[in-house]
Amino acid sequence: MTIGIGLLGLGTVGSGVAAILASPQGRHPLVGDLVLERVAVRDLQRPRPLTLPPERLTTDPEAVIDDPKVDIVVEVMGGLEPARSLILRAIAAGKPVVTANKAVIARYGQEIAAAAAQQGVYVLIEAAVGGGIPIIEPIKQSLGGNRIQRVSGIINGTTNYILSRMADEGAAYADVLADAQRLGYAEADPAADVQGGDAADKIAILAGLAYGGPVQRAGIATEGIDRLEARDVAYAAQLGFVVKLLAVAERVQDDAQAGPADGVSLDVRVHPTLLPKHHPLAGVHGVNNAILVEGDPVGQVMFFGPGAGAGPTASAVVADILNIAGIRQVGGPQAGLDPLLAASSWRHCTLVDGSLSRHRNYVRLSTRDEAGVIGSIGTCFGTAQVSIQSIVQLDAREGEAEIVVITHEVREDRFREALAAIEALEGVERVAACLRTL
Amino acid sequence: MTIGIGLLGLGTVGSGVAAILASPQGRHPLVGDLVLERVAVRDLQRPRPLTLPPERLTTDPEAVIDDPKVDIVVEVMGGLEPARSLILRAIAAGKPVVTANKAVIARYGQEIAAAAAQQGVYVLIEAAVGGGIPIIEPIKQSLGGNRIQRVSGIINGTTNYILSRMADEGAAYADVLADAQRLGYAEADPAADVQGGDAADKIAILAGLAYGGPVQRAGIATEGIDRLEARDVAYAAQLGFVVKLLAVAERVQDDAQAGPADGVSLDVRVHPTLLPKHHPLAGVHGVNNAILVEGDPVGQVMFFGPGAGAGPTASAVVADILNIAGIRQVGGPQAGLDPLLAASSWRHCTLVDGSLSRHRNYVRLSTRDEAGVIGSIGTCFGTAQVSIQSIVQLDAREGEAEIVVITHEVREDRFREALAAIEALEGVERVAACLRTL
Repeated sequence: MTIGIGLLGLGTVGSGVAAILASPQGRHPLVGDLVLERVAVRDLQRPRPLTLPPERLTTDPEAVIDDPKVDIVVEVMGGLEPARSLILRAIAAGKPVVTANKAVIARYGQEIAAAAAQQGVYVLIEAAVGGGIPIIEPIKQSLGGNRIQRVSGIINGTTNYILSRMADEGAAYADVLADAQRLGYAEADPAADVQGGDAADKIAILAGLAYGGPVQRAGIATEGIDRLEARDVAYAAQLGFVVKLLAVAERVQDDAQAGPADGVSLDVRVHPTLLPKHHPLAGVHGVNNAILVEGDPVGQVMFFGPGAGAGPTASAVVADILNIAGIRQVGGPQAGLDPLLAASSWRHCTLVDGSLSRHRNYVRLSTRDEAGVIGSIGTCFGTAQVSIQSIVQLDAREGEAEIVVITHEVREDRFREALAAIEALEGVERVAACLRTL
Repeated sequence: MTIGIGLLGLGTVGSGVAAILASPQGRHPLVGDLVLERVAVRDLQRPRPLTLPPERLTTDPEAVIDDPKVDIVVEVMGGLEPARSLILRAIAAGKPVVTANKAVIARYGQEIAAAAAQQGVYVLIEAAVGGGIPIIEPIKQSLGGNRIQRVSGIINGTTNYILSRMADEGAAYADVLADAQRLGYAEADPAADVQGGDAADKIAILAGLAYGGPVQRAGIATEGIDRLEARDVAYAAQLGFVVKLLAVAERVQDDAQAGPADGVSLDVRVHPTLLPKHHPLAGVHGVNNAILVEGDPVGQVMFFGPGAGAGPTASAVVADILNIAGIRQVGGPQAGLDPLLAASSWRHCTLVDGSLSRHRNYVRLSTRDEAGVIGSIGTCFGTAQVSIQSIVQLDAREGEAEIVVITHEVREDRFREALAAIEALEGVERVAACLRTL
């Protein structure tokens, strides 16, 4: 029994998918049942590494969806529109959808999930997070027995590449970014990567699956690496830390105990983070991604691999196609949905006010090189009940000094109160950097 | 709709499963549908941390299987018999089985799979390999689009604990083993762990799934860590390597190109291995496990986490139960099988003759401390066409010396030929250690 595939987009990922379908030998035999029936492209004349019969190419994506030979619609065109409308059109036609589009899912996931549930079709998104790493499927199908405490990850390859080189070479952010753009690791407009928006899209998706309910993308506090200075990466290393752009979705303990059984409060955020050198995520270098899931009773499990690229992303897209093909053999196209694979939502997720969450912090202060400054700083922290792990003067010249403080875990509002008091001190020029520490 | 669970065994893992079922709040809502109907135990009188209604306990495992209220049979008693017979009895009764029993699956997997296919029931084994790490499910359901090149892993926690401490403390194998036994990390009879049999069971299972056909457990070349000396761990560290007990299943390149499309030749083996310090598996410490899967086009993906323990293993068992419960909603108990979840075999796997496989090697030679010995050793390797990466004299005293050689990748039979010639040299006392290098 063959299954017709309709591809929306034949860029990097689309070509990778077509390449797998064109050469099924040595892969799971279900791959041999998949037939690439129609492909929507922007330009019919553009030369392509893969030769496809010309009648299968079209510039009209709706024709792909509407083609009766197409059983599964694969959206790999990217962007918000027309991707969103096309996904909804496929669902309305009763066709399952596979998409790699994290931006659409992070923003319109609820609308799409509601439409899919109504029509009884799957919308699968393994390729939307972590490239080739199996992470969506394990969260949906292998960790359901757990109460998830925290999902944290390095889920943007571009920023991890930049941070890895800043750490290895002591290079400045702007220089490495320019180099990454030359090498094709960063886009001409790098904003979505370096300002953390791409990672926020992805953690919204992961949190929604891990905690069983949609997470408001707009409510995710997001800080990128675009204002990170090389000296903070270097100081962090001296103190035994590695700086990574971390996306975190954490169940807020107190609330979970007090709140209703069917709701959960989450702290979801993206920011540069100091990780202790022996943390499992600290060893993830270059364009690799890794996601750490912590739950009860499983403990810590981590998923590691290539976070982007044609091959890895195509591997994830084909995994989703195979899952739809496999489950068709259970009950045919008219059967019910597997609630694990469909990832129906079952809980209300609320994002908490970040000012009440608790963190360890790294602060770098530019001060005058005077006696008593460290004492005054320590007093400010003490007054705000912020407990300090270390306070070190790391550089002093020409009457100026740099002081780095690492706090114990403190509530964000108390920490901000202390910082305000410190900024007002006579010997302190400014708060030069402020980063979270795990 | 509730689903009746019958548990065979209420030891560490069984108790962990019962604990999850007894407290569904905050887990996937399907957990709430699972009812622990009957439990087979060895001793009804034994005090247990969990209180179960006495009428649900029995010492007769067959009564659990035959109970009409039991929909899914969970085998967590361990050992070969009666576990094998009970699994077959459940299958014959048309009941799906979840088992954590790697020894039974590695030895009787083919018999069990054939019976399951005939009856159209699932036998799921996530807990058999890697404890709480989702690895069976990702290989079956997320990597099917790939041609798998290699599966390699640290899949025995006891030996990894021992090796980690040998590396950290420079301690002798026997001392760390005794300590691990005191702490409960190693059993009173440690043979299955330290001689590599447990890891061989597990790699047989992983290889069977990754390559799509059963692998002959008896044909897996297996070497444990029980003869490993502390000085080799120390020398390896000096040369930039970490020693790990690795289980490897590798597609043999040449054969795959020449052989029939429906067959694959594999090199499957377990042995202590020198890993370069920056290899993804080199950072896996203590009782943790990790599995690295390399495929085309995904590249390298790694799965990391706790390889044993009540909680992690129970998490994996419950994952399998949930998958069966989920897929029941697609088509009811009489529906077809999902070929991915059922992991039907589709290819013939042949194990190759290890003497033709190629490896890098670490060799430690006890020699006389004489001029010319290194030259003679080098000549022996050269004559056998074994290319050398480094040859270092690492210790010399009282007329004796220790020479460590690391070769480039060479065919095993050529390497053995060179070693025989070296052992016959006048200045060489003996080949004191010989380990594979990645």
